[in-house]
Amino acid sequence: MIRVTIFNEYVQEQLNKRTFPFQESWGEEGIRLMSDRADEIAAAHEGGAIHDTLKALVSECEDVEVRHIATLEMPEHGLTEEVLADTDVLLWWSHLAQEEISDEVAHRVRDHVQRGMGVIFLHSAHMCKPMRELLGTSCTLRWREGDNEHLWCCNPTHPIAKGVPVCIWLEEEEMYGEYFDIPKPDELVFIGGFGGGEVFRSGCVWNRGYGKVFYFQPGHETNRAYFNPDIRRIIRNAVHYVANPECRQEKLECLPV
Amino acid sequence: MIRVTIFNEYVQEQLNKRTFPFQESWGEEGIRLMSDRADEIAAAHEGGAIHDTLKALVSECEDVEVRHIATLEMPEHGLTEEVLADTDVLLWWSHLAQEEISDEVAHRVRDHVQRGMGVIFLHSAHMCKPMRELLGTSCTLRWREGDNEHLWCCNPTHPIAKGVPVCIWLEEEEMYGEYFDIPKPDELVFIGGFGGGEVFRSGCVWNRGYGKVFYFQPGHETNRAYFNPDIRRIIRNAVHYVANPECRQEKLECLPV
Amino acid sequence: MIRVTIFNEYVQEQLNKRTFPFQESWGEEGIRLMSDRADEIAAAHEGGAIHDTLKALVSECEDVEVRHIATLEMPEHGLTEEVLADTDVLLWWSHLAQEEISDEVAHRVRDHVQRGMGVIFLHSAHMCKPMRELLGTSCTLRWREGDNEHLWCCNPTHPIAKGVPVCIWLEEEEMYGEYFDIPKPDELVFIGGFGGGEVFRSGCVWNRGYGKVFYFQPGHETNRAYFNPDIRRIIRNAVHYVANPECRQEKLECLPV
Amino acid sequence: MIRVTIFNEYVQEQLNKRTFPFQESWGEEGIRLMSDRADEIAAAHEGGAIHDTLKALVSECEDVEVRHIATLEMPEHGLTEEVLADTDVLLWWSHLAQEEISDEVAHRVRDHVQRGMGVIFLHSAHMCKPMRELLGTSCTLRWREGDNEHLWCCNPTHPIAKGVPVCIWLEEEEMYGEYFDIPKPDELVFIGGFGGGEVFRSGCVWNRGYGKVFYFQPGHETNRAYFNPDIRRIIRNAVHYVANPECRQEKLECLPV
Repeated sequence: MIRVTIFNEYVQEQLNKRTFPFQESWGEEGIRLMSDRADEIAAAHEGGAIHDTLKALVSECEDVEVRHIATLEMPEHGLTEEVLADTDVLLWWSHLAQEEISDEVAHRVRDHVQRGMGVIFLHSAHMCKPMRELLGTSCTLRWREGDNEHLWCCNPTHPIAKGVPVCIWLEEEEMYGEYFDIPKPDELVFIGGFGGGEVFRSGCVWNRGYGKVFYFQPGHETNRAYFNPDIRRIIRNAVHYVANPECRQEKLECLPV
Repeated sequence: MIRVTIFNEYVQEQLNKRTFPFQESWGEEGIRLMSDRADEIAAAHEGGAIHDTLKALVSECEDVEVRHIATLEMPEHGLTEEVLADTDVLLWWSHLAQEEISDEVAHRVRDHVQRGMGVIFLHSAHMCKPMRELLGTSCTLRWREGDNEHLWCCNPTHPIAKGVPVCIWLEEEEMYGEYFDIPKPDELVFIGGFGGGEVFRSGCVWNRGYGKVFYFQPGHETNRAYFNPDIRRIIRNAVHYVANPECRQEKLECLPV
Repeated sequence: MIRVTIFNEYVQEQLNKRTFPFQESWGEEGIRLMSDRADEIAAAHEGGAIHDTLKALVSECEDVEVRHIATLEMPEHGLTEEVLADTDVLLWWSHLAQEEISDEVAHRVRDHVQRGMGVIFLHSAHMCKPMRELLGTSCTLRWREGDNEHLWCCNPTHPIAKGVPVCIWLEEEEMYGEYFDIPKPDELVFIGGFGGGEVFRSGCVWNRGYGKVFYFQPGHETNRAYFNPDIRRIIRNAVHYVANPECRQEKLECLPV
Repeated sequence: MIRVTIFNEYVQEQLNKRTFPFQESWGEEGIRLMSDRADEIAAAHEGGAIHDTLKALVSECEDVEVRHIATLEMPEHGLTEEVLADTDVLLWWSHLAQEEISDEVAHRVRDHVQRGMGVIFLHSAHMCKPMRELLGTSCTLRWREGDNEHLWCCNPTHPIAKGVPVCIWLEEEEMYGEYFDIPKPDELVFIGGFGGGEVFRSGCVWNRGYGKVFYFQPGHETNRAYFNPDIRRIIRNAVHYVANPECRQEKLECLPV
């Protein structure tokens, strides 16, 4: 069984019910905008939260077990040493509160990936601390809400692309556009083309130490991308591709010989 | 001075004036279609031929000298040993008669690139023999005439992208779309997004032996892409980037030591 | 079952028993040298031929079936359309008669790889026509007989390196040294260090179209490298890694859409 | 002029004259060992300090100006905002006190590289905080003092290798061996082979945002590697290669469009 942990920031979903201390910095209009979105997210995601959607999605694999759901407000964001040691693949979705992740937990995630845990960063998680620490770049990009996307496969024999067509049409998707400030992917699997003319390296793999990182761009919070069967297939493929429990290391150290 | 040779197939431009033996295989309608195009090309290209446009374009650099114009119908397609030995960078445009290039000349071009000559393959030259021999793949793709393109830079510090904006708009351009069957580029510089939703790795660099290869997608025969100042800048940048006369080798051989 | 075909040049093994028309070009001393070697090869390889060793090696996998043994002197070198269509992975060993392979068969092998057949080029096969046609470089290198090698893994999570130690010691191996004129590997798995101080990119993967290419340097004809259990493990791993029958294509063509 | 800043930890050079608070953790024997080394370093480096050697080395270029020497014990380690804003290329040598660099300064260096400053990490700097933050891996390796090295060029047309022979012999060099835990280099330029049989990716380039990173392995503190004319040439080449002041960015931000 592949042991999966899902980290969902789980902030936007709750903004119509409660407040978070860090939201003050958004200003009144920002808060109102974000709160309105909470209802949209609830409508888009069965169960009401993005982690519910992701849990259902990966649970369709018989060889995958979701072991932990972690959210920002849990102690240590739900990502304790014990949880990560019990995780083969971590899925990460975050957006509004990237800076609220403690450095300690960000480093812990980075270290576990370097030692062999697989990780999948989804959509707006491109700016989360662990992704930027693993890639070493700013991960900045262009963006615009309310667009659509053709997602093209430029690596048809890649295991993550198995069983999906050369083009996936997403009627509604946030535009993410180049220049996307990432290191050259070890494997570029998908390129997105948006209604506004922009393009984006939407599916990228990097090796970091003993672990694999997959970044996948679709999945704006109010969209139904994660209910598209091909997108679901890609994420499930990716869980299998980045899982590598056999290579997990206890510690990485310089070795005098 | 960088010594440039331009190979232009120079078939389509002449189809309203003359015939070529190999055109029989196109069928009557194919011949008519291609002949009609000759007038369009003449209208799009000052001087009437694609090599005239390219010659004027690279000649804007004070440190570039166009030494030879080569075309399909010349003896050895104009690409004799003497011509290639006198060439630092070869520009190649071809389309209708890719198979008419002799294997001997194709191998000769490949060998000179491996020994240090730079080469720039333009637009439909993706299927020419020397490009396929240098890359080792089929170089096949999707295509459709009559589209437009946003050309995005995904490598903003690359010398070939120097001085050009992050996005270049081409009102008229043939669509070339993924899956483009090429080896992973050593350097991916541009990605195109087309009106029909397709995307394409439009600007790619590969190293082959002591030489550099640049493939650049814009430049359909009836378009004005080569008159766009940013496209012109890219091609001139590329001439400088792939030129490397200091590293030219006489012969590549296994060396017993 | 993974269907394997083994191509062995099968020239050196026979030089004490017979002559080949192309050997005249080696000169008298060359012929004597090569003939002497035939006995050494027979001593090193059970069954007397390199293809016997390779067949036994890959047959240790229960999910591998050796379908065809092909040699230079067979009609079409034993690599007919039918044989290649019946092959998921081709192993290729060659040395003395690289230029005796017909262009037609070399192109056929290249085309099958581009369409999804896996291929493993072993040792001196770095100069065979299909490898050079797939890579697009000269594949030249430095060499010297009578050395030893430490083979180091620089990619410990790679499937080809599964189950082998970080360093494999080969008491006897021909030195192959840099500069090795190959395109940048998509995946660099092993680097060799030789007694004379040379280094070499000894295990490299490239993707070409729908197929995978693995080059692996150990295996000089008179050595016992293929009887080292870790080398055997690597080759068996590689057979599994480059096999991808699901992605096999009928034809690669540009697609008007 | 290329503006260079040299960071040298400058701890070992002083250990026969003074103590540092952090040295207590080394234990008595460690302190004695390190203090003994101070005299050796003084003997190896004209001027007595590694930064003197590096300053003299890069100053041989007429188009390079050393603007700042920075050391660990300076306020902010000598790497203030002002200093980095005045720097096109940072050379970094460190060894004993990697953890003594403040996170703030490490992040500042990383940020300047992402925004376009070039950086060259030398020898034991593979474990410094900025390098690990830029690469996203542990940068761990095997090591052993008292070896020798053949440094081979596996990328002969690379600008960093210009003017140096295919092999450089270093009679005395610390062994650094694989597995070296780094991301796949964008450009692998040198591979080292050591007397003990180990190999190492000794010269590697990575792009990070708008900046370039070069790691170069030779340069153990008590050796004379930096007085080898070819090693000097490589470092001067690298200064020119990673310098890119034209592309320096003020800030990297996501851009709503």
